[in-house]
Amino acid sequence: MASSAEKTRNRLKNIGSFDIIEKLKENLNKNSDTEKDRLPIELKITEEGTTERRNFIYSETGKTLPLLYGEHSFNNLNTLEGNIENFIGMSMIPTGVIGPLRVTGTDDNGDFYIPLATSEGALVASYHRGAKACYLAGGATSICLVEGVQRSPVFKFNTIVELGSFLSWVLPLTDHFRHITENTSRYAKLIDLKANIEGNHLILIFEYSTGDAAGQNMVTLCTDEICQYILEHAPVKPEFWFIESNYSGDKKATAYSFSNVRGKKVTAEIILPESIITSVLKTTARAMAEYWRTSTVGVIQSGAIGAQGHIANGLTALFIATGQDVACISEAAVGITRMEEKEDGALYASVTLPNLIVGTVGGGTALPTQKECLELMDCAGEGKARKFAEICGAVVLAGELSIAAALSSGHFTGAHKKLGRKKVKS
Amino acid sequence: MASSAEKTRNRLKNIGSFDIIEKLKENLNKNSDTEKDRLPIELKITEEGTTERRNFIYSETGKTLPLLYGEHSFNNLNTLEGNIENFIGMSMIPTGVIGPLRVTGTDDNGDFYIPLATSEGALVASYHRGAKACYLAGGATSICLVEGVQRSPVFKFNTIVELGSFLSWVLPLTDHFRHITENTSRYAKLIDLKANIEGNHLILIFEYSTGDAAGQNMVTLCTDEICQYILEHAPVKPEFWFIESNYSGDKKATAYSFSNVRGKKVTAEIILPESIITSVLKTTARAMAEYWRTSTVGVIQSGAIGAQGHIANGLTALFIATGQDVACISEAAVGITRMEEKEDGALYASVTLPNLIVGTVGGGTALPTQKECLELMDCAGEGKARKFAEICGAVVLAGELSIAAALSSGHFTGAHKKLGRKKVKS
Amino acid sequence: MASSAEKTRNRLKNIGSFDIIEKLKENLNKNSDTEKDRLPIELKITEEGTTERRNFIYSETGKTLPLLYGEHSFNNLNTLEGNIENFIGMSMIPTGVIGPLRVTGTDDNGDFYIPLATSEGALVASYHRGAKACYLAGGATSICLVEGVQRSPVFKFNTIVELGSFLSWVLPLTDHFRHITENTSRYAKLIDLKANIEGNHLILIFEYSTGDAAGQNMVTLCTDEICQYILEHAPVKPEFWFIESNYSGDKKATAYSFSNVRGKKVTAEIILPESIITSVLKTTARAMAEYWRTSTVGVIQSGAIGAQGHIANGLTALFIATGQDVACISEAAVGITRMEEKEDGALYASVTLPNLIVGTVGGGTALPTQKECLELMDCAGEGKARKFAEICGAVVLAGELSIAAALSSGHFTGAHKKLGRKKVKS
Amino acid sequence: MASSAEKTRNRLKNIGSFDIIEKLKENLNKNSDTEKDRLPIELKITEEGTTERRNFIYSETGKTLPLLYGEHSFNNLNTLEGNIENFIGMSMIPTGVIGPLRVTGTDDNGDFYIPLATSEGALVASYHRGAKACYLAGGATSICLVEGVQRSPVFKFNTIVELGSFLSWVLPLTDHFRHITENTSRYAKLIDLKANIEGNHLILIFEYSTGDAAGQNMVTLCTDEICQYILEHAPVKPEFWFIESNYSGDKKATAYSFSNVRGKKVTAEIILPESIITSVLKTTARAMAEYWRTSTVGVIQSGAIGAQGHIANGLTALFIATGQDVACISEAAVGITRMEEKEDGALYASVTLPNLIVGTVGGGTALPTQKECLELMDCAGEGKARKFAEICGAVVLAGELSIAAALSSGHFTGAHKKLGRKKVKS
Repeated sequence: MASSAEKTRNRLKNIGSFDIIEKLKENLNKNSDTEKDRLPIELKITEEGTTERRNFIYSETGKTLPLLYGEHSFNNLNTLEGNIENFIGMSMIPTGVIGPLRVTGTDDNGDFYIPLATSEGALVASYHRGAKACYLAGGATSICLVEGVQRSPVFKFNTIVELGSFLSWVLPLTDHFRHITENTSRYAKLIDLKANIEGNHLILIFEYSTGDAAGQNMVTLCTDEICQYILEHAPVKPEFWFIESNYSGDKKATAYSFSNVRGKKVTAEIILPESIITSVLKTTARAMAEYWRTSTVGVIQSGAIGAQGHIANGLTALFIATGQDVACISEAAVGITRMEEKEDGALYASVTLPNLIVGTVGGGTALPTQKECLELMDCAGEGKARKFAEICGAVVLAGELSIAAALSSGHFTGAHKKLGRKKVKS
Repeated sequence: MASSAEKTRNRLKNIGSFDIIEKLKENLNKNSDTEKDRLPIELKITEEGTTERRNFIYSETGKTLPLLYGEHSFNNLNTLEGNIENFIGMSMIPTGVIGPLRVTGTDDNGDFYIPLATSEGALVASYHRGAKACYLAGGATSICLVEGVQRSPVFKFNTIVELGSFLSWVLPLTDHFRHITENTSRYAKLIDLKANIEGNHLILIFEYSTGDAAGQNMVTLCTDEICQYILEHAPVKPEFWFIESNYSGDKKATAYSFSNVRGKKVTAEIILPESIITSVLKTTARAMAEYWRTSTVGVIQSGAIGAQGHIANGLTALFIATGQDVACISEAAVGITRMEEKEDGALYASVTLPNLIVGTVGGGTALPTQKECLELMDCAGEGKARKFAEICGAVVLAGELSIAAALSSGHFTGAHKKLGRKKVKS
Repeated sequence: MASSAEKTRNRLKNIGSFDIIEKLKENLNKNSDTEKDRLPIELKITEEGTTERRNFIYSETGKTLPLLYGEHSFNNLNTLEGNIENFIGMSMIPTGVIGPLRVTGTDDNGDFYIPLATSEGALVASYHRGAKACYLAGGATSICLVEGVQRSPVFKFNTIVELGSFLSWVLPLTDHFRHITENTSRYAKLIDLKANIEGNHLILIFEYSTGDAAGQNMVTLCTDEICQYILEHAPVKPEFWFIESNYSGDKKATAYSFSNVRGKKVTAEIILPESIITSVLKTTARAMAEYWRTSTVGVIQSGAIGAQGHIANGLTALFIATGQDVACISEAAVGITRMEEKEDGALYASVTLPNLIVGTVGGGTALPTQKECLELMDCAGEGKARKFAEICGAVVLAGELSIAAALSSGHFTGAHKKLGRKKVKS
Repeated sequence: MASSAEKTRNRLKNIGSFDIIEKLKENLNKNSDTEKDRLPIELKITEEGTTERRNFIYSETGKTLPLLYGEHSFNNLNTLEGNIENFIGMSMIPTGVIGPLRVTGTDDNGDFYIPLATSEGALVASYHRGAKACYLAGGATSICLVEGVQRSPVFKFNTIVELGSFLSWVLPLTDHFRHITENTSRYAKLIDLKANIEGNHLILIFEYSTGDAAGQNMVTLCTDEICQYILEHAPVKPEFWFIESNYSGDKKATAYSFSNVRGKKVTAEIILPESIITSVLKTTARAMAEYWRTSTVGVIQSGAIGAQGHIANGLTALFIATGQDVACISEAAVGITRMEEKEDGALYASVTLPNLIVGTVGGGTALPTQKECLELMDCAGEGKARKFAEICGAVVLAGELSIAAALSSGHFTGAHKKLGRKKVKS
């Protein structure tokens, strides 16, 4: 029992620790100044506007992004090694910027300019509006709660009795498996081992922390090494086995990952005062809460995993811009959004993303424009993954606020009221 | 009853019509020649290899892709209008090519070279291997079965009695709504209207065909026009309403869309003879079928929607390359993969994708490199969406075959057998 | 299109018709008198209390229930024919009564005494409290919206091309299938035929109305007759087929049935004024709405189908008492509960049950005590199934109100407040 | 890490321990005699047949069941205290018997006669046939893998920072909570405490073992005591809290409970040789495996939780007969069934039931006929719950085999073959 509680504490060390909470409070106090100049939104794309934004970003962040801006051309093919085969060229994705987005996290806090690569009109403008509301309200609190990436080999036996003999042998070996992990990867740490039995099928769920990498390949290699050891030494051999049982939730939305963690679990929240809801979002807390309640019952009826608005929109654009594994949107875009009216006309809103598979090293993070985009947020390289995950949470929160505002305002009408023609992005 | 059967027939007109079936048979006969030169896979990226591939593609297809190849630089900002706001530059995504992928569809058939934009190593190589196996086996059959995009406004009433009065008035108006649709959009056609009642909430599900566009904005505009009419004329007014109840499955995996259609529903199949499984995929039909069965039980236990391997990988890469709404991977990557061993050592494999939201006009399809990539497959512009969807189905099938082969081979071992070190992509 | 709208109208004829709505309004007006004597709750079981209740029920309904009361003993074995094999005796389930439950339905309206057979303490008392609140508020509105029972055979072909040929032949035959249905069963009517394709698998979904029977066996027999015809005459034969593909949702909670209908779809609602919430439920609308919102986010995170409290409790007890197929609780207990605070301190509450598989003829409805229990509600025999379904909806609503009140009251506390010890049933 | 592995070992102590595995092997050896007389099936219900069965059961087990048989009448009202309120009488449910069902478990092993209370014709006969096949094949292996019942209070805070302060305080207190549990209940033991955070909502998941009781009320009382302590002493108070967040899966099918445990998790398996499949089940392993594969793809498409045939049928009948909380069928009937053809024409089959909420003390287990039915299987009272759960697993396995045989035989036909008219139960 003690050990189990200890485990829960370890897993929740970001939120369940006094030190982190004190750090958070301190960061919250810092984020009280909102006088900073803001990036103006431009719906029509012009040379002048583009130049102005680039200058603005430089003045705010000191960053130039020559490859993204097309000022340097990319011609260093060998940097693509390990990212692509049968290379023929570079697809170009229009990239806009939103911000400043003020984020108070456990890792870092500050005001960020967020690059979003998309071809879907209105997306950047919508997220920008949400970011503005968050900024004016003092910023979003965003916390990376738990981390863990799984690989889940399956072993099949003749009978469940043989499975039991195998399992009795394998479970005491976790210290050794941790040792194998350390010898296989500099970054991966084995943090949990669970077993799932279905008839004569045994799934072993190896869960790792993966440093600042998204880590899917890393955990495959470590698990393969462990399985080699197991297969060589086990007194009872499986009939066959596979390195992945399709239980780990890789590249798919699953209820299992949704109620556990896959990558990083982040929760972000904000309280928007009435005045900002009125001036920036052009609606009311009541209308937004009403929309939330109604649409939550709608999405339950659709048989979704989780309940949210359009998390995928902003997250996909951010993943493309920053060299994440974009196919992981399948799982990363699962989450919970919640909105509640408070007594004084303010709105409480939160988003929770349990399957945020992101990294700031490895994968596509060192590619030309991707690295620039990570650097724009000071999120490139080691020691930045948790911070980046917390920024992701705040971006998603901004987007959920904006779409709920769009859907609740104007349309939140009595029947006799004439509707405005409005293009709704989602 | 007759009307209902007629509706089912209309919806399944691609598969449930003698003419289409005859066309398919004819196309199947055409696809018997497999002597064509093949694109060699190159894992290491070199100048020479890149040049060679570009030449090969030119010789096979007559296509040059100057923007993708970086030969022309992009500088026509106003083509980005409607795709982005707050533009600062272009993110560059490494793009590889696989093929020829032979596809027999209801719309077109032939051998295609498929552009995949990704930063995930091994993905292109894996899909290329699957494409090779399909090509040598005579090509995949891929059929777009049904089409439909939904927008689902919700109306809230004081009581269910008021809801009933409203519904009694609204249901007979579908012809008029069709008329409104025609006046609002050149492409959209209202093909179905359903109602879902939960207490005093009424969700009206408007389903449209959207021509060759993905169509989400189009259906929003049409539904808004219809709702304006409703709100002006309804004898009983709702307390409030929203243009979207979050029931339509936009940007999320839902059981409802999975068991209906969202965008296009495509099914693709192939029978791989034993010799090709051995030579190209380095495994056996039995091992692949065993893997399929085991991993299907695994994915059921994970609480996924559908059951598949890594559909998201190839589809995301193809969506990025061709200007699709990449966030729709959330719903598009839901599907069913099936593999069965046949008596003679062959393998039957199929994939079914009920939520393929794709288009060949609108959205990002006219962007610089995206248009080139669509043209590479002769899929740019009007009249091409169904063909493109059928190609998507075949690409996904190739990828599912390749990963199942990787996971089943080598690892499908008795316990005493030494394992090879292998990087598994997914 | 017109035909599709017509179909929707036919399916929703209960709610989408002016006549029914007028009938409902009329019934609502009738249900305004609440002076009737009420059944007192007795937590301790005594001879006197039992006798008193039986007398009360007789005085209110004129019903004696000699077999349930143990006054007659059951000894007519042949009445069990078709209900059981290897009979050895009768299990006895304690049965309590709640009421009057006032129900305004499309079929009937009035005050009902509801028999609940259970061994779970507090269940009857909890539902009785909910019923009392509903009665004092003028009764619940409960509407059977749609009806349909499915049987879903699957046909497997060599290839999807053969499947297409088969489908092209089968779809125009629905009139003939309707004819076969009429010749096979006096009660069943074929109301819809849909097709679902996955690779070379074709599932045909036959949907029937089944009169006043739950109808699962009836639809199996009709579908078997239809399939015999198909297999004899189809120009392309399937490799094999099964009468049920496990798609129909029989005896299991499924997202598909939840978003369609299985059996009967019922929605019930009530508005409870503040005074009744305070006096009967000992809580407030705000606390109940807060509980609803919080627990809805909780149940979403648990990965449930639908979102409700303890529908299964009352429905199971009612199913056992009335001879329903109790195993169907698996699917029938899926639904949506919603609670909202209104401006004046009142509470709006509704439940929606899309999979209510119930009957008043066939199955166990003619068994000794079961028939008495159906008669107690004037629900035995032909012409009563829709009424019984509407009563089920109102019973479930009463139970959802009572548990939400229990969970929100007392426990809806600041931290310094001492809690009362309370046994919570669920 | 060590502690986590230890926890996994503790949780899987039944299967992951050498002693248990040795016991199982020993039990398997004992179960080799199959010469015992068998109970004949009687489809028509007669006095003679009933008497003969009662005599047979007496001769095999020494049990008389006077209350079930109607030989004694029930008249001891105060035994109903705590099981019912507003009592009016006893509902009578026809009860049949199947067996002998041979079960090899970790707790006990032997041949059992199983009482099933139902009104659904063919159910008992179908399960009896499956039991016969299992018996002749040497019996099913059935193992209770894990146990745990949850109660999941939710605490709401102003902000996630306050939540963090509260959590930091509460997590180290698990030893104290264990102490509170011991003081509150003789049977309950707190075995795990987990935390789930969503914005400012904190769900604490208390998991208990509950001895031989199903335990839902027991865990409510213990959790309430713990929460009282928390609310009195916590340095940061929640805005409000509820004893149940609707996350625990009580009375509903949820993906969360399905991938964890609720009550007891049991897996049962059997290998049926070809000869028994032919003679008893009238089909082949290939046909059954084909049916399994096809229907598994069917049930995936229906959006079920898990994948099985008609678990609910037998389990409901057994729950009614033995005084279980029948409403828990909602969750208990979730599971996985698997069938595979083996090289020699034999069939491997297994069922896995992760949410088996059952008890042999408390609830309805001491009611008149219910106690007799538990005694018939030597499952009444303390020390019997695990054994009873393992019998449940074997009963379900028998039923799954029988329905798969019915659906695969006869109907597994070429198209030209005439079908027999057959009533399919499910």
